[in-house]
Amino acid sequence: MTQALRLGIDIGGTNTAYGLVNESGVIVAQGSISSRGHESPEAFVRALYQQMKEALPSSSFENITSIGVGAPNGNYYTGNIEFAPNLEWKGIIPLASLLQTQFSIPVRVSNDANAAAMGEMMYGVAKGMRDFIMVTLGTGVGSGFVANGELIYGHDGFAGELGHVIAVRDGRLCGCGRKGCLEAYTSATGIVATANEMIHANTSPSILANVAITDSKQLFEAAQKGDALAISIFDYTGKILGQTLADAVAITSPEAIILFGGLARAGHFILDPIKFYFEENVLIIYKSKVKILTSQLAESDAAILGAAAL
Amino acid sequence: MTQALRLGIDIGGTNTAYGLVNESGVIVAQGSISSRGHESPEAFVRALYQQMKEALPSSSFENITSIGVGAPNGNYYTGNIEFAPNLEWKGIIPLASLLQTQFSIPVRVSNDANAAAMGEMMYGVAKGMRDFIMVTLGTGVGSGFVANGELIYGHDGFAGELGHVIAVRDGRLCGCGRKGCLEAYTSATGIVATANEMIHANTSPSILANVAITDSKQLFEAAQKGDALAISIFDYTGKILGQTLADAVAITSPEAIILFGGLARAGHFILDPIKFYFEENVLIIYKSKVKILTSQLAESDAAILGAAAL
Repeated sequence: MTQALRLGIDIGGTNTAYGLVNESGVIVAQGSISSRGHESPEAFVRALYQQMKEALPSSSFENITSIGVGAPNGNYYTGNIEFAPNLEWKGIIPLASLLQTQFSIPVRVSNDANAAAMGEMMYGVAKGMRDFIMVTLGTGVGSGFVANGELIYGHDGFAGELGHVIAVRDGRLCGCGRKGCLEAYTSATGIVATANEMIHANTSPSILANVAITDSKQLFEAAQKGDALAISIFDYTGKILGQTLADAVAITSPEAIILFGGLARAGHFILDPIKFYFEENVLIIYKSKVKILTSQLAESDAAILGAAAL
Repeated sequence: MTQALRLGIDIGGTNTAYGLVNESGVIVAQGSISSRGHESPEAFVRALYQQMKEALPSSSFENITSIGVGAPNGNYYTGNIEFAPNLEWKGIIPLASLLQTQFSIPVRVSNDANAAAMGEMMYGVAKGMRDFIMVTLGTGVGSGFVANGELIYGHDGFAGELGHVIAVRDGRLCGCGRKGCLEAYTSATGIVATANEMIHANTSPSILANVAITDSKQLFEAAQKGDALAISIFDYTGKILGQTLADAVAITSPEAIILFGGLARAGHFILDPIKFYFEENVLIIYKSKVKILTSQLAESDAAILGAAAL
């Protein structure tokens, strides 16, 4: 007897990962495709379909019963991606409708961070929690807010844009066109920008002196060697994130904040300052009450599992 | 046949209002007592009980079947008021338990702004809305966030402290001990502080020159006479509120924001700048989508009705 499979698709600014999830919540097959370089969303959907058809056993492919998609600015209610600053496609993209036409299967679309939150709630460190905040630190900074055991979609499906809360008033230019968004500081490109600024301004000895930073992994390796400048770059980034999280907690008072993605992999170098500045800035009634955790799911699994569960 | 009545109590920083609400949602009797000058919470509860017993017909008093309380930092889960910066009582006050002992009737306690949100959702401009933000601009600044048709209480009952989101980093000292909270700028005392600062710094002709401001009503009257300084005080206050609301909307994406209390009574002098700076600062996906409304319920009714409905 064949088993029904759900297709979970996680569209990121750089890569799109997909996986087939069985009824026990196990990813039985997966793959990925670049999110960039397709001439149109239609071409992207065709390329995705073609690649899956070639890569997956036809028996699996035929047993897909539903598709869930996590995408930047993905709208749960309309199935569209709308004005996603980190994708090459501008304006309103009717993604659910394009996929439904291509696959002839029901499709649900949501914010990629909302999908990751669903994944954490069902399979990860948020299992059993009714109130938590998921923060995805990737090409962009996304979030999913769960309150009373439910994802907050908002009246139009666009809730949870913590990455576009103003962290620094009149601060650094963000991809969305405004200034000082959290994303401009704590995304993959945000911390790289901070690093290059701080390296440029630095006058003390550092193994980062005259190095052009392109990836937070370079900072992590320098911090591991005890480089004070690298440590202070994480400290500054953690300060901005900790301060912004302290404000977000005043709105939904969660049991935990779960960090996921690139920056979260820097371990205690980023977690220690986040926790320090969070506690320093948070209102007294929340002090020492909110767990700040990192996701324990494999990088792409949370989003695929969450998307499949939509 | 006698009708069951619910007692709604709204504890504010200055005054405590109460009302008996019948099964049709009509306030059939009401009164108030000062929140200040009682030597202990126990003395306050005794004084409240005594005054009600004298003021209300004994037949009504005997038909009270439940008590709902909206109070600053009131906790829905524990029934306590915990560390309320605007009350004379410090630390943890077991309010539900004190009232239950005094009245021998079941008691529910919540944040006063959460109670106001319930009132708006059942009887006010938020009727039929599933996603909105209630903002109370009084002695303090409170808020109630409704998402998916439910109040967000948070894991510990303390969600919705928009008044203690940092509106101005390293800004004005707030009653909570931190700096730059929204409440320090948009509460009754906040706008008075702004006014006195701006009057002091002002060099242009103004009917407010050399006037010591004690109440936003003075500013409203001056603005009505076309005083540019008064108008710019509302503009500055509306800017801070509009900016902070733009960030809050990025979290819950509400259909509307409902303003209630002192400052909301300044009409277009405060609403116009709030709307202008909100739209100027909000992320593109939310632009022109969020209604900014003022409560149409009588000042104390919303909170009493909401509290009674807890």
